[in-house]
Amino acid sequence: MRAVVCHQAQLSVETLPDLVPARGQLLLDVERCGICGSDLHARTHGDETAADVAELGYDHFMRSTDHVVMGHEFVGTVAAHGAGTSRRAFPLGARVVALPVLRAGGSVHLTGLSPLAPGGYAEQVLVDPAMTMRVPDGLDAEAAALTEPMAVALHAVRRGEVGARDVALVLGCGPIGLAVIAMLKATGVRHVIASDFSPGRRALAETMGADVVVDPAVESPWSSFAESRRYLTEAIALAELGLDAMDKLRAVPLLPWAHVMRAAEKAGATPRGPVVFECVGVPGMIEHVVANAPLLTRVVVVGVCMGQDSFRPSMAINKEIDLRFVFAYDPSEFHQTLQWIASGKVDVRPLVTGTVGLDGVAGAFADLADPERHAKILIDPRR
Amino acid sequence: MRAVVCHQAQLSVETLPDLVPARGQLLLDVERCGICGSDLHARTHGDETAADVAELGYDHFMRSTDHVVMGHEFVGTVAAHGAGTSRRAFPLGARVVALPVLRAGGSVHLTGLSPLAPGGYAEQVLVDPAMTMRVPDGLDAEAAALTEPMAVALHAVRRGEVGARDVALVLGCGPIGLAVIAMLKATGVRHVIASDFSPGRRALAETMGADVVVDPAVESPWSSFAESRRYLTEAIALAELGLDAMDKLRAVPLLPWAHVMRAAEKAGATPRGPVVFECVGVPGMIEHVVANAPLLTRVVVVGVCMGQDSFRPSMAINKEIDLRFVFAYDPSEFHQTLQWIASGKVDVRPLVTGTVGLDGVAGAFADLADPERHAKILIDPRR
Repeated sequence: MRAVVCHQAQLSVETLPDLVPARGQLLLDVERCGICGSDLHARTHGDETAADVAELGYDHFMRSTDHVVMGHEFVGTVAAHGAGTSRRAFPLGARVVALPVLRAGGSVHLTGLSPLAPGGYAEQVLVDPAMTMRVPDGLDAEAAALTEPMAVALHAVRRGEVGARDVALVLGCGPIGLAVIAMLKATGVRHVIASDFSPGRRALAETMGADVVVDPAVESPWSSFAESRRYLTEAIALAELGLDAMDKLRAVPLLPWAHVMRAAEKAGATPRGPVVFECVGVPGMIEHVVANAPLLTRVVVVGVCMGQDSFRPSMAINKEIDLRFVFAYDPSEFHQTLQWIASGKVDVRPLVTGTVGLDGVAGAFADLADPERHAKILIDPRR
Repeated sequence: MRAVVCHQAQLSVETLPDLVPARGQLLLDVERCGICGSDLHARTHGDETAADVAELGYDHFMRSTDHVVMGHEFVGTVAAHGAGTSRRAFPLGARVVALPVLRAGGSVHLTGLSPLAPGGYAEQVLVDPAMTMRVPDGLDAEAAALTEPMAVALHAVRRGEVGARDVALVLGCGPIGLAVIAMLKATGVRHVIASDFSPGRRALAETMGADVVVDPAVESPWSSFAESRRYLTEAIALAELGLDAMDKLRAVPLLPWAHVMRAAEKAGATPRGPVVFECVGVPGMIEHVVANAPLLTRVVVVGVCMGQDSFRPSMAINKEIDLRFVFAYDPSEFHQTLQWIASGKVDVRPLVTGTVGLDGVAGAFADLADPERHAKILIDPRR
């Protein structure tokens, strides 16, 4: 089969031996595979990530000296069944998506990010039926290929526990920021503010459903929350609410502070801060959020910042900030995402800004550096 | 009145004008006041904290050039009533504790940490009746003085959402770490592991109820969780559980991942990580936790680390760590704490390792640097 192989940060199209499904594996003909920001990173900084995850006991993340077929955002059709797999559940030719994890050699590997589980930048890919889902009838390959990155966004939104009446603030409108915006709207969040320096990305943020779009070079995305940044907001709110009789509190021994905040909001006293989605992932973003966020802000950290990063823990303490770091999704979120794409509850098509063949992958990696030109580029290995 | 005044990092006993309660204020005769770790810090590094909280809009935190009476962990008896305060709710001579916040000049100030609200290192202190609670009959001043730091611990435990069957790991057994241990046990947490380099503090940790006490110089406090550090634990658990039919997941579209983890636990596959309480508060502790914690660990950051601190966000993402920074408490937690101390549900007496008069405060500050000698020193201004 033809595939794009990454070795020493170089991407080249090679002809590899055809894949053969082992016991408990399915072989897919790849229809589309998305290029993910983490692929861009893994190409040049895989050794750094490999060292991180080796610390976690997984020693097979791609290194620069490996020959790796990347690609973990794929959709394809069933081409062959390994022993012990069900032809009824997954008929030949059926369109499927799969979580990019593969059991092999008694361990579990990250498809497209390990030399032991080649990914979707290829004509064929192996999947685990336990992690594979049929694409609903009528959903084309292009939209289905977005299941994986959209599942990342759904997971982030769920971890943020955003209520419909909360304000969500999305910092950074790259592919994941845009996916988060779409999932926030799909889950019914009424007020989504999005911020990005790029006009092209801001336009896409509007298309994906952001209610307010901010250019941080012109206006701080935090300006709406200036009032709620005041120190001792809680104490002031308490005083303003006239809770002078501690009897009220004695009667409700474990009255959560949130009640006071809600009452204060009703009284117009303290606009509550937003739930923040940090989708930039460069050094300094956590300090930026800690410095600018209002009291009691919940922050979902989706953007992956490599290396050491520094911030002021004492300021995070003053404000009682929550930093919730998120990674991937679970199978149910993946499944939910697929259904929502199929039903039209989320429209992923605006995210796709280009499609290339295997020969175009190296060029696409270069093009993705320009935020004005692209969000998501898909690979069509037969193109 | 006599009081300890902090100026240019020097503590000296001075005779100040007697305090007069303004409208809406009560005057207390101080019975006891605890010396808090943040007082030690504010004495020498107040300017740094003042700059931080000025960023938050509060410009009256104590600076080195101010003359400040510190002390925010106080108990006293009602000595005089300002206009508009209730003699029935707070009779003369009644023993009370209060949240250390005072309304004055149209703003709210931090009692004992601002020149505008002198604290409890003195014969008298002013309090706001809205923040004041009667000490239940039979509870002496020494134990009641621990209400404030114990409320910090209760708040931290609540923010940690620790279940009775969770394992809690307390890093650092200074006064706040010890208070957290006591509150974890009071709220029914069965397994509390405590870690500190100091033999004296480890002994106190046992007294306060820790089930396992670890000397990190000898054994890693994380060793019990080594098994759950494996990368892809989730995927492995899923495979081991035989969830080969995605139908199971399809039937429960939003099956939370926690279900899989719980099922895996029942099957003995993946011991879940602890809820961690970071009570050390020095640079590097957040990276220490991120590097050592198992997947999906919730971390409550109670220890205040000043200045910049650095860690690896990518590792926090790999593990989906939650960092929940906590500060103080709300009035209901303060009230709950007071009741639990009064009822004996928490025994705070082992925390008190010394009592000094106003003349002994400067010496006590020096003594508190030695973890073997002291946990909490109380001031008795009449001694």
